[in-house]
Amino acid sequence: MEVGFVGLGSMGAAMAANLLKAGHRVRVWNRSIAKAEALERDGARRAGSPAEAAAAGVVITMLADDAAVSGIVHGTDGILAGLGGGLHVSMSTIGTELSDRLAAEHQAAGSRYLAAPVFGRPAAAAAAKLFVVAAGREADIDAAQPLFDALGQRTFRVGTRPSAANIVKLCGNFMIMAAIETMAEAATLAAKAGVDEREMLGMLTGTLFDSPIYRTYSELILDERYRPAGFAAPLGLKDARLVGQAAEAVRAPMPVLGVIRDRLLATIAQEGEDVDWVAMALAARRSAGLK
Amino acid sequence: MEVGFVGLGSMGAAMAANLLKAGHRVRVWNRSIAKAEALERDGARRAGSPAEAAAAGVVITMLADDAAVSGIVHGTDGILAGLGGGLHVSMSTIGTELSDRLAAEHQAAGSRYLAAPVFGRPAAAAAAKLFVVAAGREADIDAAQPLFDALGQRTFRVGTRPSAANIVKLCGNFMIMAAIETMAEAATLAAKAGVDEREMLGMLTGTLFDSPIYRTYSELILDERYRPAGFAAPLGLKDARLVGQAAEAVRAPMPVLGVIRDRLLATIAQEGEDVDWVAMALAARRSAGLK
Amino acid sequence: MEVGFVGLGSMGAAMAANLLKAGHRVRVWNRSIAKAEALERDGARRAGSPAEAAAAGVVITMLADDAAVSGIVHGTDGILAGLGGGLHVSMSTIGTELSDRLAAEHQAAGSRYLAAPVFGRPAAAAAAKLFVVAAGREADIDAAQPLFDALGQRTFRVGTRPSAANIVKLCGNFMIMAAIETMAEAATLAAKAGVDEREMLGMLTGTLFDSPIYRTYSELILDERYRPAGFAAPLGLKDARLVGQAAEAVRAPMPVLGVIRDRLLATIAQEGEDVDWVAMALAARRSAGLK
Amino acid sequence: MEVGFVGLGSMGAAMAANLLKAGHRVRVWNRSIAKAEALERDGARRAGSPAEAAAAGVVITMLADDAAVSGIVHGTDGILAGLGGGLHVSMSTIGTELSDRLAAEHQAAGSRYLAAPVFGRPAAAAAAKLFVVAAGREADIDAAQPLFDALGQRTFRVGTRPSAANIVKLCGNFMIMAAIETMAEAATLAAKAGVDEREMLGMLTGTLFDSPIYRTYSELILDERYRPAGFAAPLGLKDARLVGQAAEAVRAPMPVLGVIRDRLLATIAQEGEDVDWVAMALAARRSAGLK
Repeated sequence: MEVGFVGLGSMGAAMAANLLKAGHRVRVWNRSIAKAEALERDGARRAGSPAEAAAAGVVITMLADDAAVSGIVHGTDGILAGLGGGLHVSMSTIGTELSDRLAAEHQAAGSRYLAAPVFGRPAAAAAAKLFVVAAGREADIDAAQPLFDALGQRTFRVGTRPSAANIVKLCGNFMIMAAIETMAEAATLAAKAGVDEREMLGMLTGTLFDSPIYRTYSELILDERYRPAGFAAPLGLKDARLVGQAAEAVRAPMPVLGVIRDRLLATIAQEGEDVDWVAMALAARRSAGLK
Repeated sequence: MEVGFVGLGSMGAAMAANLLKAGHRVRVWNRSIAKAEALERDGARRAGSPAEAAAAGVVITMLADDAAVSGIVHGTDGILAGLGGGLHVSMSTIGTELSDRLAAEHQAAGSRYLAAPVFGRPAAAAAAKLFVVAAGREADIDAAQPLFDALGQRTFRVGTRPSAANIVKLCGNFMIMAAIETMAEAATLAAKAGVDEREMLGMLTGTLFDSPIYRTYSELILDERYRPAGFAAPLGLKDARLVGQAAEAVRAPMPVLGVIRDRLLATIAQEGEDVDWVAMALAARRSAGLK
Repeated sequence: MEVGFVGLGSMGAAMAANLLKAGHRVRVWNRSIAKAEALERDGARRAGSPAEAAAAGVVITMLADDAAVSGIVHGTDGILAGLGGGLHVSMSTIGTELSDRLAAEHQAAGSRYLAAPVFGRPAAAAAAKLFVVAAGREADIDAAQPLFDALGQRTFRVGTRPSAANIVKLCGNFMIMAAIETMAEAATLAAKAGVDEREMLGMLTGTLFDSPIYRTYSELILDERYRPAGFAAPLGLKDARLVGQAAEAVRAPMPVLGVIRDRLLATIAQEGEDVDWVAMALAARRSAGLK
Repeated sequence: MEVGFVGLGSMGAAMAANLLKAGHRVRVWNRSIAKAEALERDGARRAGSPAEAAAAGVVITMLADDAAVSGIVHGTDGILAGLGGGLHVSMSTIGTELSDRLAAEHQAAGSRYLAAPVFGRPAAAAAAKLFVVAAGREADIDAAQPLFDALGQRTFRVGTRPSAANIVKLCGNFMIMAAIETMAEAATLAAKAGVDEREMLGMLTGTLFDSPIYRTYSELILDERYRPAGFAAPLGLKDARLVGQAAEAVRAPMPVLGVIRDRLLATIAQEGEDVDWVAMALAARRSAGLK
């Protein structure tokens, strides 16, 4: 099918490429033109504006944060201006407040809106192994399903209110950060007590905690792979802020979130803006006087 | 082989039974006599004191806490008195300080000491599916290995200092409690935001967090199985205290532990001493005004 | 002198009245007209818009939050439109980001900007006993000093960058909330341990902690004066959010802030949006199973 | 009156000297003899054991921790052995559990027991400006009052159960540590935001927080007086542990205590065992990447 794609970062570029591979016709737009040109060579058509990308009738957005999404949706050459009665599939990790607002604006404009954020790092995006979490009108999800099938290994439908998908995505990222923090604290205790951290985490992530997140992140912690960042600490902080905003909006205390937020701030303050969020483990070690 | 077994609670009774099934000769001792008599019917020999159980040459202890273990080891009819040059295999979840002290006392007395705590709830003990984490002299672990094989699905050796095994066990329990707390916070946010908790946790524990702990405890949280307790909240609090003592001894800050400790205190204060530690999720819900 | 005054809530109305009493000519503006009319009877002149109030040459704003201040400054009849080369004295508790932005906008427009938030509850405002914390160009503070003298008992100058005053105000409110939380935790421990809370807090706030904040808030806690709110919990939460934003902007972890934030969320979730922030103490008691 | 005094550290020596100055006859005992000899020159009589000191009929203990107090009370030459029907005035900062146990042991032995911990650093002890917090039987407090009058500026009676005084003392120390942590966080935010910390804390501790604790500790924080320790961080950690034990015993969550505990652990881990607890502020700064 014909689809617009806005936002060609490390995630978006891989996703747009997979849409092309699956036979879809893709109109790409990106703020910096070089990435769009690269995809043009793979068969994409380059759109002159977000509005022109949206004129395809279905448009996917995959951008860094709330401000970027809002910037691309509004304005005279924005998505709302070009979409007509079409469908906006918002796959970025954004806040629930913005997601609710976009839903209302699309409804007012006669267009349609789905939230469909994804789980997976760039390698999973390239391998079309993402998990897609979709929420919105059933018919709209059905319409987008062929696209999701080209991008991920599985789609989860979590309700008809689009921001429900954003909540699930934010909770997932919260749980990942909580797992990193937890392993970091346990590894620090072990190290200071003279216990081999690799043996301990190996034992635990090979049995009780034998899941992708624990296996992946225990390896990253033990190998101290802080740079270059696969997912930079400030992006984790952004997610922590979005979780906090959602929690504040509904009046839900989340004390582990407070710990994560402070750890990320310490990590960035001590190590710089460019480290991977896994460096939370380094900040935990430093707090205990190690290194 | 001939082995003494001291402590026949829900874990210990199942373990002693498995030793019998595997063909070992077991001398059992328990503070209240009824449980020892039950195992006698399965072929165990009933010892008149911990010392008499220890006279088997190898003795396993599986007791509720530091005080119980200390009480059974010391005194005129205690394990130290009866063990001679034999081997004490301490499988209880105890603190590192006591474990280090027992190691020193055994050495002074000419006897031997292993720490070999286990992961698994009573059902896993009954099914001989425990994970055994052993630390101590290699030759002593070799000697005990046939017993571990009868009790668990796998043994992990984590060093020669016995208390290393206690650290690993305590870190594991810390990580379990952190996982419960994390899921409780995420589920509370979801519930207040109108998102189906079961769908969300099902999605996350079926993919990124697809591990025994997350699957088991997300089910318990969603089903609100607070009573009768499989593992009572005060036992979790005891473990949290032992982790805290170990962390304090080596000067390691653990902020998530602080969150867990307070959540367990709130849980017990609000719900009583008899709830399962999974009721941490109930206290999280109440803190957000739910129920 | 001639001065505009925008924002006639319980703080602002009392402040504007004091300016009149001190002999200044005051042009008042308020979103709902009734409050402006009341001051008209005391000799104020009613302005038709914020711009008209600003045309006095000096204009004070005293509003509830960032959005209210921003709304009153911008737009065709906003303060920027009417101020010319005049001076905007921003006395509301707002975030540092907005304060920095207002400073830049005023500079670009050829007008001048001071931040001068105040400490004190409505009774202190009525008694002209506020503490004023001012930051900005020295000459501008000198110009506004006669107004500050009419409003407060003392003015503190904390630098030339206006947002420095907002930082001081936010830190002060953070410290007040930390004091409430601390006393709430201590009182809860005392109550559960069978110690008379009033005797304990009386002893401590009469000696080591003998300061206005501790005396005032220990009384409010002990008397359980939760309603009507002198300062509503959601306003405290707003301040906690502004502190958090400032901390996030400069990468400063603040773990006590996390505790405060969660306590306020629990307070509001359990007790409603209308309780005083002192009800943090009630939420602390409930978390310990009291009441 | 005749009184025994056990424990001549920096606090105890100053207190015993004040008893002598006030005309009381004092029998001193200390583990290391030199300090007792010094007081002998001021007119004290040196006792050969805690029992001999207790034989005076009233004995004050002023020791570092629970273990030291327990060690001096028990045994063949301990206080219980020598006190007869006399009165033990326990002025050390100890835990509520030990205090309750001592009360029971004294009752069983036919002797009497008061808890009367004090607030004040060594300089206040030397100036007889301590605050005494006493709990126990009214008649016993009356009997000890002349001694308290020689030691402090004021005595507060907080109930008939001795451990009530220990709770008040522990809550006071908790509140002091919370004030240090709070000021440390605020000062760190200010410093990173380019605001003068001294101006800010000066403003706040000169107005809203104008109390001895805030004035004293803000000065110590700003002057970075970390060594030599007036009150060493590990002693603060001991107090935090005692507060935690009391809170755990009565099931009272105290999240700010968790923050304090972790900050003290980080402080000691990073700076060593010999720093003043005011170095919590240094650890806060480091966590934010300062220095």
